[in-house]
Amino acid sequence: MRLTKIGEFGLIERFKKRINLDSSVIKGSGDDCAVIKFNKNKYMLFTCDMIVEGVDFTTRTNPYLVGRKALAVSISDIAACGGVPAYCLVSLGLKPNSSLELADKIFKGLRDLAREFKINIVGGDISRADKLTIDVSLIGFVEKKYLVLRSQAKVGDKIFVTGSLGGSLKNKHLKFIPRVREARFLVKNFKINSMIDISDGLVQDMGHILKQSNVGAVVYEGLIPKSKQAKSIEDSLYSGEDFELLFSLSHKEAKRLLAKNLKVFRPIGEIVDKKQGLRLIDKHSREKQVKARGFRHF
Amino acid sequence: MRLTKIGEFGLIERFKKRINLDSSVIKGSGDDCAVIKFNKNKYMLFTCDMIVEGVDFTTRTNPYLVGRKALAVSISDIAACGGVPAYCLVSLGLKPNSSLELADKIFKGLRDLAREFKINIVGGDISRADKLTIDVSLIGFVEKKYLVLRSQAKVGDKIFVTGSLGGSLKNKHLKFIPRVREARFLVKNFKINSMIDISDGLVQDMGHILKQSNVGAVVYEGLIPKSKQAKSIEDSLYSGEDFELLFSLSHKEAKRLLAKNLKVFRPIGEIVDKKQGLRLIDKHSREKQVKARGFRHF
Repeated sequence: MRLTKIGEFGLIERFKKRINLDSSVIKGSGDDCAVIKFNKNKYMLFTCDMIVEGVDFTTRTNPYLVGRKALAVSISDIAACGGVPAYCLVSLGLKPNSSLELADKIFKGLRDLAREFKINIVGGDISRADKLTIDVSLIGFVEKKYLVLRSQAKVGDKIFVTGSLGGSLKNKHLKFIPRVREARFLVKNFKINSMIDISDGLVQDMGHILKQSNVGAVVYEGLIPKSKQAKSIEDSLYSGEDFELLFSLSHKEAKRLLAKNLKVFRPIGEIVDKKQGLRLIDKHSREKQVKARGFRHF
Repeated sequence: MRLTKIGEFGLIERFKKRINLDSSVIKGSGDDCAVIKFNKNKYMLFTCDMIVEGVDFTTRTNPYLVGRKALAVSISDIAACGGVPAYCLVSLGLKPNSSLELADKIFKGLRDLAREFKINIVGGDISRADKLTIDVSLIGFVEKKYLVLRSQAKVGDKIFVTGSLGGSLKNKHLKFIPRVREARFLVKNFKINSMIDISDGLVQDMGHILKQSNVGAVVYEGLIPKSKQAKSIEDSLYSGEDFELLFSLSHKEAKRLLAKNLKVFRPIGEIVDKKQGLRLIDKHSREKQVKARGFRHF
């Protein structure tokens, strides 16, 4: 049987079932980060992301931005859990004929972003590889009371996104600023029931929240903040690598958030009963078919 | 300038100089693990290792053993710092046409070893890749009083290794049992001044201890425990992937260790003044030239 039959998420589910975890693990595989007991007040967050030439960037991509992206995607995962990043390791697979200049640029991209977010690059591994490959593993922390997972969305919640969606592959996927500031603002000031970062497209990532929270959702296309780069609304619904936050909070909390009048947070729908699944409503209030699309590795 | 000119270790040194670390980091890049403040009694250890098809294993290697190795090499790093492994993430780069059976076998190799060492596999990332690539990042813990680095070897120390050396690439590099038990026995019962795991060959890894401890060493070839697979003494001196422990302790502590009569620990030489560099003495008590060999990625 080929991997393409089961796909990335099927494979993760398959592996997950076979793993035993001890009681110090609050949340294992299946959220943006693993959540581990740390001390009386905090949890430790632990995440990794591998980016590969030809999949996440091309040979013509500015290496500075490749290094930057390798770290940014993991920071985004920490943000999605409401936390703050702290320590990272970098595994770097370089082609044997690589230039020192290339390695320097990748490293500078990583380091500059690490400085911006006060992350300690505490080590790593360098290996020979056929395609440039960077895997960053990142440890962060979150106060217990601020932890947000994908699994606590409630019927009646309002759904929000940060920023705008679509067309990220033109530029934003290399230059986005992980939404740590926004996430911290949210968890400190509101009771956020569920959150995820949009890495595989709004519809697909919304699906993760619905599945893990055992709920459905109605999303209004007309409310989705479309980025300038998005060619169509389909782009905003299905294209990957926006790295914006998708989150839900109660009606009451949503009202308080809206009262702040902050353009970065936009309501796009609400959580409904599981039976409804994911429903898309177009500008003419018509039900629209949801496609099983979004980024897939296999 | 090509990477081959500066090499893996040159590159690590180069990057290291450009990193700022805050005071919570006891040891950043340049040891077997990063060492981070954790609580009153313990440090957190953090390490990663990337293994790549065509470098660390071949397409014909049993995938179960590939998965096993991916985790084993990181456990070995935790052992070298005197610690115990606890949580890992696995980034898996799979070829698009891979079979589910392959993925299952890799995962089983990882999981079985994780169970053996009571490690929680708390998550990971799956990506498309041209060559099978596995990067494992591992968090461990060590009591503050038991932490061992590469940098505290003292003139007069006796140098020991565990097990036997050489010829690992025939089999052992895929099947070795990381020396956690031996390392814990050592740190709990003796004052170990320096330790490293032998991944790039005895001479090259000895070099890391000497450089970071600012000392020299005399190693007696006749004392080196040669593995059955080693073709010659050169194999035991320079070939990589033994994943045995190389450590030093004071003359007094060494006497206590030898008195235990444990075959797994063998004395091979002593730490001397830095001026002497690394000296190899052959069976006929003759000085032998040390070659700049050992595993190199570039």
